[in-house]
Amino acid sequence: MPDDGLDMAAAKDGAERIVTAALLVIGDEILSGRTKDKNIGYIAEYLTAIGIDLREVRIVPDVEEEIVGAVNALRHRYDHVLTTGGIGPTHDDITADAIAKAFGVGIDFDPRAVAILAERYGTADLTQARMRMARIPDGAELIANPVSKAPGFSIGNVHVMAGVPAIMQAMLDALAERLPTGRKMLSRSVPAGMGEGRIATPLGEVQKRFPDVAIGSYPGFDPATGFTTTLVLRSRDETRLAEAEAAVVAMLAEVRAARG
Amino acid sequence: MPDDGLDMAAAKDGAERIVTAALLVIGDEILSGRTKDKNIGYIAEYLTAIGIDLREVRIVPDVEEEIVGAVNALRHRYDHVLTTGGIGPTHDDITADAIAKAFGVGIDFDPRAVAILAERYGTADLTQARMRMARIPDGAELIANPVSKAPGFSIGNVHVMAGVPAIMQAMLDALAERLPTGRKMLSRSVPAGMGEGRIATPLGEVQKRFPDVAIGSYPGFDPATGFTTTLVLRSRDETRLAEAEAAVVAMLAEVRAARG
Repeated sequence: MPDDGLDMAAAKDGAERIVTAALLVIGDEILSGRTKDKNIGYIAEYLTAIGIDLREVRIVPDVEEEIVGAVNALRHRYDHVLTTGGIGPTHDDITADAIAKAFGVGIDFDPRAVAILAERYGTADLTQARMRMARIPDGAELIANPVSKAPGFSIGNVHVMAGVPAIMQAMLDALAERLPTGRKMLSRSVPAGMGEGRIATPLGEVQKRFPDVAIGSYPGFDPATGFTTTLVLRSRDETRLAEAEAAVVAMLAEVRAARG
Repeated sequence: MPDDGLDMAAAKDGAERIVTAALLVIGDEILSGRTKDKNIGYIAEYLTAIGIDLREVRIVPDVEEEIVGAVNALRHRYDHVLTTGGIGPTHDDITADAIAKAFGVGIDFDPRAVAILAERYGTADLTQARMRMARIPDGAELIANPVSKAPGFSIGNVHVMAGVPAIMQAMLDALAERLPTGRKMLSRSVPAGMGEGRIATPLGEVQKRFPDVAIGSYPGFDPATGFTTTLVLRSRDETRLAEAEAAVVAMLAEVRAARG
């Protein structure tokens, strides 16, 4: 997760602009349910923390036309597209080629990537399969991989990372240093202590009074206590957020009092 | 990927067709990272088990135009679209209205849904907010909710379920009984006992010999033993699957022998 350095960097170039992102998860194994994705939640939380709004996620199979279609749909709509998966050495790792195709550029062995792999494996063990991991679309910047060396890359506003969580997380740290971030979304969480049905109408009234604060209502179920609700308020304006939070807390007290 | 080969193999066999699905997860809280999704993996595994291919997943925010756009993109492409989230009683629960808009049909209080809620809450506690949960698009079939009663619904090939995992799972059981399923995908998992780099080339050769069996290579990292690989073979044909598995096992033995 972002350290203080990142937070400061975000504050420095943050200004007022809102920066958006989409995430593209590439992999048959997620769609078949064999592997449970661990990256979406991590990336969502990470981006929120550094002031980037994750607006959409897609999961597509290891099929070139699906990857190309999704990348092209997302990269024109959002400031950044992050991808995970499909950049290893095996025949089903087709992400780099698909990204090159999406951008209409060539792809070849990248001397910087070859040098990194040659240093890790030595010339003897740098097999043809491993060399696949040095195939990088023309014009891309590398994303460092301190865990297993084979790099990710950025081309235009698309940032291509590994799918293995430990490697993805290291790449995201490296990538985040050069991502322009926006004004951070702030949030407050208020446990309602009762089910949604009792508070839905007065909560809707509070939302109408604070159209500039997004109020989410998240129902849960606790076998011991029954239905629960967590209210989450989000805004980029600290003052409005505090005002809305006070209004929600007052509303909850009223509902409780009315029921005795 | 050998998708066409798989489709052809199933068509030739003539028994049952391939049934495809997409999943649309609706909710700001997943995109902000506040809530970690628990439904995607569950639904992926469930659909695979009953013979439905999950081909795409999208996560979108609680924004009507985003939901409408995604539903319309997905419902024309896949046999079924499942959605989770946004059907509760609060102001941010806009899924039912968005689905009605996507289909260009009206939406109103559904007498069947009203009866279910009236039975659960009694007339006194059936607030305006709770009545929101009885708003169902015209022409939809209800999906039973044994956990908290407020139903989901199916309209055309779109199946709308709750986001709370316990409720979604109960709805999925109810829905599955009426979903036409396809010929089941079979799979075998083979731990390679070594990193991807050593097996990528011979594995690619095996894949070429079995174009009708999808062979996935999934790298992992174990701090104790280093890089690991799990090979997953998938096919709807038991015989071809067994042949491909034998070929993979033989290939692994050869690679091990070559290294001594």
